[in-house]
Amino acid sequence: MSKPKIVVLGAGYAGITTTKRLTKQLSPEQAEIVLINKHNYHYESTWLHEVAAGTISPNQARYMISDVINPNRVRLIYDSVVEIKKDENRVVLENSEVTYDYLVVALGFVTNTFGIKGMNEHALFIQDIDSARLISEHIEYQFAQYSAGENTDEESLNIIVGGGGFTGIEFVGELADIVPKLCKKYDIARNKVRIINVEAAPSVLPMFDRDLVSYALQALEARGVEFRMGAAIKECTKEGFIVGDDAELIKGGTVVWTGGVTGNPVLGKSGFELVKGKVNVDADLRVPGEENLFVLGDCSWVMDKQSGRPYAPTGQLAMQEADVAAYNLKALLTNQPLKEFALDDKGTVASLGLSDGIGSIFSGTKLQGKAAAAMKKVVDDRSLFLVGGPKLVLKKGKFRPF
Amino acid sequence: MSKPKIVVLGAGYAGITTTKRLTKQLSPEQAEIVLINKHNYHYESTWLHEVAAGTISPNQARYMISDVINPNRVRLIYDSVVEIKKDENRVVLENSEVTYDYLVVALGFVTNTFGIKGMNEHALFIQDIDSARLISEHIEYQFAQYSAGENTDEESLNIIVGGGGFTGIEFVGELADIVPKLCKKYDIARNKVRIINVEAAPSVLPMFDRDLVSYALQALEARGVEFRMGAAIKECTKEGFIVGDDAELIKGGTVVWTGGVTGNPVLGKSGFELVKGKVNVDADLRVPGEENLFVLGDCSWVMDKQSGRPYAPTGQLAMQEADVAAYNLKALLTNQPLKEFALDDKGTVASLGLSDGIGSIFSGTKLQGKAAAAMKKVVDDRSLFLVGGPKLVLKKGKFRPF
Repeated sequence: MSKPKIVVLGAGYAGITTTKRLTKQLSPEQAEIVLINKHNYHYESTWLHEVAAGTISPNQARYMISDVINPNRVRLIYDSVVEIKKDENRVVLENSEVTYDYLVVALGFVTNTFGIKGMNEHALFIQDIDSARLISEHIEYQFAQYSAGENTDEESLNIIVGGGGFTGIEFVGELADIVPKLCKKYDIARNKVRIINVEAAPSVLPMFDRDLVSYALQALEARGVEFRMGAAIKECTKEGFIVGDDAELIKGGTVVWTGGVTGNPVLGKSGFELVKGKVNVDADLRVPGEENLFVLGDCSWVMDKQSGRPYAPTGQLAMQEADVAAYNLKALLTNQPLKEFALDDKGTVASLGLSDGIGSIFSGTKLQGKAAAAMKKVVDDRSLFLVGGPKLVLKKGKFRPF
Repeated sequence: MSKPKIVVLGAGYAGITTTKRLTKQLSPEQAEIVLINKHNYHYESTWLHEVAAGTISPNQARYMISDVINPNRVRLIYDSVVEIKKDENRVVLENSEVTYDYLVVALGFVTNTFGIKGMNEHALFIQDIDSARLISEHIEYQFAQYSAGENTDEESLNIIVGGGGFTGIEFVGELADIVPKLCKKYDIARNKVRIINVEAAPSVLPMFDRDLVSYALQALEARGVEFRMGAAIKECTKEGFIVGDDAELIKGGTVVWTGGVTGNPVLGKSGFELVKGKVNVDADLRVPGEENLFVLGDCSWVMDKQSGRPYAPTGQLAMQEADVAAYNLKALLTNQPLKEFALDDKGTVASLGLSDGIGSIFSGTKLQGKAAAAMKKVVDDRSLFLVGGPKLVLKKGKFRPF
């Protein structure tokens, strides 16, 4: 009798954590495990705003999958998923096909432009390592062109960022750190460069209390970030954003959209029933009516029974879901009852550059300034630790333990 | 009675060396010295191909003028020269004017496109720090765009270099070093990137013997550089070079022209008589008929009495001219006879990347490979040493003395 085969799609937070837990909890005799990912590396998607600003290197934000997952225990396939044929227990890849007994779909997010005209064509996205790195190269290229006299338009130096959510605000915080350095490097006066955050809602960072938000806005404004709140983007052109009813043009040589994400489009292509681009899963994290199919992380909505609304998508959520998914996979193999997911909320911390931040941790404690910045690094290192242990923290961590 | 005033225009090899020598040879009572330069830094113009490739940082190739010239002894003015009114002993700057008793014009070179259609608009030049840095940023930007899927055209990765002279060949040598590193960084196969040197003449590096040239060609070809010799560029477009009678298009996302230089256009604007963009000077380095006017470096032609042709423009030539100009300025102030210039040729060394090169030194000794590469670093460090002494070599040198 052949071993059951568990296939995990995606090596983001959810996928790589699930795989890691499975290797610990199952003996090689209990199941064959396959992990499929586009690249041979995992990246910390919550660090991408730093790669995009250029404040950390792309390599610090990624590690080789084979450094944390034993390739002798798990079959690693580096390929792109084209379609999931869930009625046939089969996954079509770009270069091959894989069958499964159990499937974990953890294919992550893509940027959602909400159909704003021109956004796909003209804005840059913080989506993966390559797209984030392109942004930092693009910004530096604007500086290089300006200082070489190739572009005399001062507005080419402006960096405009659409979206005042987590990524948008953390990104402008990093930009406030890097822009003075670029100005020095390229002999350009700091006041020639504008960093402008544009948000349709009347405020930013809706997940934080108002006093923390107002701290963040003041701190960032003091470091030269401009905010245009209540400014809906009507269109994105080569020159920048067109906002508001009077169609004002906010010009910038670098235009970044951080205003929305949605689940991987493979879900829709594979016939999953979608709500705002993601799959509603049951409390055991399986797709309703599907015995052997888990959907995790940014590809699914999990109901928070306390609030009656789905949990907000975070790296913390994805990793905790992975723990439950691995537990439930083992339960399925051993005919034990499955667990229901509930988030153990450790809190939320947003960085505002290297040495500033805001956070609400545990039950109501608020942090701001250096304490929040330090806590953010602890959070970031924790995600490394949970997958790769202390060795990985030493190699890629932001807050060295000694 | 007021002190005579010596004004030096330009802080390149010729200008900064002249100024340095004058401060050593003249007492503060003998003359007032003024050095005028566009930037507050000197750069090593013979190192710019390395900045353009990204194999050294822009900062390694420049140093602050005030680090080597005492600002209490020399009045330093950072401004651009607009015009020399030689009949009025006056120099018009962008932001002020300066009169002089003696003038040293050492305003360096600009790129010469020989009127090739589209070259000014579409090609990048290795001309100064900012333009060289733009090239390395441009190259990396192509890689970043390609790896992020923004540009799927493989030819966007190609780097095409017009001109097989010193700069063109040294530049492709650096490119052969950096391209494999960029490929690794951006997960791009090395064979997707072509480095193509295009030269109208039947061979490259006309200043070297044929055996050295053939060594250089073979060494560079082995490292992935392609040569198109005997290929005259008819036009430069956004896509690349159009060459030969059949108007073949050689495509590349990075197009660099190194095929010619000429003297600073201020010369023409100021009514100097020009031969191929430069001023023919007498053996004492003064403009014929002008008692108080020296023109040095890439702004002038000095006849080599042995060959009957002007000396080829090099950093070595500029610095040796500076020694004679400083001597002659002192002679003029003290009513001594002036010296005639003759080059003490130490030889010529071309680098082909970090660890390869070719050279002819002293009277006929030929070098190739690592020995030439080492000698090149000695040459480069020597130019630092001659202006800034051992301290500057320690700070910016390529070949540490310990």
